[in-house]
Amino acid sequence: MNRKLVFNILGRLLTALAGLLCLPAGVSVYYAEWRSVAAFILTAALSVVLGVSMQLPTRRHSGVLYAREGFLIVALVWVVASAIGALPFVVSGEIPSYIDAMFETVSGFTTTGASILPDVESMSRGMLFWRSFTHWIGGMGVLVFIIAFLSNVSERSIHILRAEMPGPVVGKLVPRSKDTSKVLYIIYIAMTLVLIALLMLGGMPGFDSVVHAFGTAGTGGFGIRADSIAGYSHYLQWVISIFMLLFGVNFNVYYLLLIRRVRAAMESTEMWTFFGIVGISAALITANIWPQYGSFWESLRQSVFQVSSIVTTTGYATADFNLWPSFSKSILLILMFIGACAGSTGGGLKVSRLVILFKLIFQEIRRMLHPRAVTTVKFEGKQVEEHTLSSVATYFAVYMICIILIFLLLSLEPFDLETNFTAAVSCFNNIGPGLAAVGPMGSYAGYSPLSKILLTLAMLMGRLEIFPMLIAMNPSTWKKR
Amino acid sequence: MNRKLVFNILGRLLTALAGLLCLPAGVSVYYAEWRSVAAFILTAALSVVLGVSMQLPTRRHSGVLYAREGFLIVALVWVVASAIGALPFVVSGEIPSYIDAMFETVSGFTTTGASILPDVESMSRGMLFWRSFTHWIGGMGVLVFIIAFLSNVSERSIHILRAEMPGPVVGKLVPRSKDTSKVLYIIYIAMTLVLIALLMLGGMPGFDSVVHAFGTAGTGGFGIRADSIAGYSHYLQWVISIFMLLFGVNFNVYYLLLIRRVRAAMESTEMWTFFGIVGISAALITANIWPQYGSFWESLRQSVFQVSSIVTTTGYATADFNLWPSFSKSILLILMFIGACAGSTGGGLKVSRLVILFKLIFQEIRRMLHPRAVTTVKFEGKQVEEHTLSSVATYFAVYMICIILIFLLLSLEPFDLETNFTAAVSCFNNIGPGLAAVGPMGSYAGYSPLSKILLTLAMLMGRLEIFPMLIAMNPSTWKKR
Repeated sequence: MNRKLVFNILGRLLTALAGLLCLPAGVSVYYAEWRSVAAFILTAALSVVLGVSMQLPTRRHSGVLYAREGFLIVALVWVVASAIGALPFVVSGEIPSYIDAMFETVSGFTTTGASILPDVESMSRGMLFWRSFTHWIGGMGVLVFIIAFLSNVSERSIHILRAEMPGPVVGKLVPRSKDTSKVLYIIYIAMTLVLIALLMLGGMPGFDSVVHAFGTAGTGGFGIRADSIAGYSHYLQWVISIFMLLFGVNFNVYYLLLIRRVRAAMESTEMWTFFGIVGISAALITANIWPQYGSFWESLRQSVFQVSSIVTTTGYATADFNLWPSFSKSILLILMFIGACAGSTGGGLKVSRLVILFKLIFQEIRRMLHPRAVTTVKFEGKQVEEHTLSSVATYFAVYMICIILIFLLLSLEPFDLETNFTAAVSCFNNIGPGLAAVGPMGSYAGYSPLSKILLTLAMLMGRLEIFPMLIAMNPSTWKKR
Repeated sequence: MNRKLVFNILGRLLTALAGLLCLPAGVSVYYAEWRSVAAFILTAALSVVLGVSMQLPTRRHSGVLYAREGFLIVALVWVVASAIGALPFVVSGEIPSYIDAMFETVSGFTTTGASILPDVESMSRGMLFWRSFTHWIGGMGVLVFIIAFLSNVSERSIHILRAEMPGPVVGKLVPRSKDTSKVLYIIYIAMTLVLIALLMLGGMPGFDSVVHAFGTAGTGGFGIRADSIAGYSHYLQWVISIFMLLFGVNFNVYYLLLIRRVRAAMESTEMWTFFGIVGISAALITANIWPQYGSFWESLRQSVFQVSSIVTTTGYATADFNLWPSFSKSILLILMFIGACAGSTGGGLKVSRLVILFKLIFQEIRRMLHPRAVTTVKFEGKQVEEHTLSSVATYFAVYMICIILIFLLLSLEPFDLETNFTAAVSCFNNIGPGLAAVGPMGSYAGYSPLSKILLTLAMLMGRLEIFPMLIAMNPSTWKKR
């Protein structure tokens, strides 16, 4: 293991984190929450001291990075960022238990939005801001941030560090270089600013607009009210609905639009499949809940909001869908697995993987009927390599096995099957709410500390698409070479 | 489509079915149940008339069989056998609804054991015998039976008709010829006879011994008492436990033992993995239910019985595991997915597929760490072809997607998520009982006719490993060529 390089990158991360912590500190100053100010400043100071002392002795590292270290760095960056990011909650005393604070911070960075807070409305403004800000940072990726703005790591190493980028790579544009990383970040910032403006125009207070824009952009889902988004106006709910969907689209589509390759952007199979899934699900649920609400428009709004929120793995809610009929709940549960597009800020299995899985199934049928025929699979106009195909199928298997194992361990808790199963699915897919006791109006506060640690791990594994965490947890990765 | 050949094989099936129906007719005569006798004789007569009239004009068929027709024949044989096999229940008036009778018969042939009977103890002896006999026939495969004893179809065609044999083919012995089919049948008959003898020695009445031996051998699960096996002695419960496991082992192991290749038989990775899964699950459940039962031996017996019953997809019960703690229920739910060994009479995903999936995952990790290394996967001492690997991974995807779609459609019923989900899982994996309302002491009687048809299809799809049914349901398969 190239320990020097690993330490150096972690050092840089900590310095950057110290900078990021100044923002919530500023918010706390503005609201005169001195306890929070102290917590943020202390954490930032610790972070910068640790960061510099890790960077200084490791400046002369060799820049060569092997795949194993790439995965390890990705996993470590997320764990360390969360471990430090959790400190302000503990230091300020607003979340006294470190396990709870870590859960909340990982839930933030991984854009899950699952909360252990029994009463979110009693938190200070600064802490609420920090919680939502972690969504915004985590949405694009902690490492992508470092690379885009701070790094002098070689291009080849950047490619290795892409383990953080969600979804399978199928020949299309992904941020392979610093420049594209920056362009994607600019799109991200611009869209967030537009969203803030639209929310404020609709009469949402400035603070609320910013934190909800963070939660929407990162497809996170941390709110600041006990009833999530239900208390805001219909206009605001529609704006958030639409922006959740926009942030669930593959950012390459926006990149292509930006460089005026409109036709290429509009030919995205993944995007249209994503919108198709949203449309069909919303139509079915609208029809299913119509008798319950009595009004078509009310049903449509509730249905579209909840579908957008779940499929993009955001997790905001305007209704307690626990009280919906079984059919609607089942659709939402299935959407939890599907998730958003690859290359978006959303989690889940990703639409592109689903499309490829279906193509694989049709290929298998063709092979059975014509054993000697040569078959290929195309996606987004390009032939998909055999290796990518088998990776997607294998990913699906390891993905299901992980969810099942997490569910099994959670079953040691005295909750019902529905609670435990949807808690595992929701955390692993970085959504936030599940069903029953962990429904949109519930919280994860009832779980034991051990289960909270398990769910924290689940969120990290889900966000990093499993393998970096598996590789980091393998002792042989840590051997000095 | 080679319609002549398809008709000819279906005709043969119907003639064979008429012969098989004489057995329950004889049982009904013995118990002087004349109503049942009439029902069986009428059905047999209809079957033989239909069968002969389908065979006569199609005797001069060309023996050439393409893959598409092979799959179609497999699907049709199962549907037609069930459609005719359901008639005695309706004709005798013991199951007045044809949809219910079809559900029960498909449940029998597919060795599921799910029942819509609200009161099994009120059925006539003849019908109970027929119900369990369908398990025994379906266990080895309806077509295998025809081929082994009646067929003059060419060897190449036999190979195509293997779509009925469960599990992936990984270079090991499977019944590729008529001779091996016969040997496997002889093993099957011998083991069933030994089981009947052991049950009778333990004091089980003759009739009970025979039907329970059928249900155990076919890993079916139809019982004749409302409390399944709970009312029988501990000795009888242990005998059934052990034989369920024995019938869940790949029959190739017994074949190898028979031809004295003991070492090869003992080196079966699949068998040892299967026993490992059973051992660990039983140990965990024993520990988990010990406080509830208060006695170690009682807990062990209950645990081993239920684990054996679920993992082999039999479905007998000696306890209402609905009342067990969540952890034990979750283990059983996971075992429902795993299923027994390939080449056994059991259903589910199959242990060999699970082993291959895990090997694929480790191969994927190796590839990530060493992108340029050439990697292979070995199973049962042989290298597995790339094509088989991708088939296994694709099968897992289509398997999960099928279960999820069935669950979604079942959600239109007013049952809770646990009932609907486990009903879908249990029927698709050919187990029988699920949890909650479809638990071991419940039944499927509460579902609407439409859902019963859906679950009937699910049992057939699960038994035939999805693809034959998908291909049969595709209109292009039916075109004349």
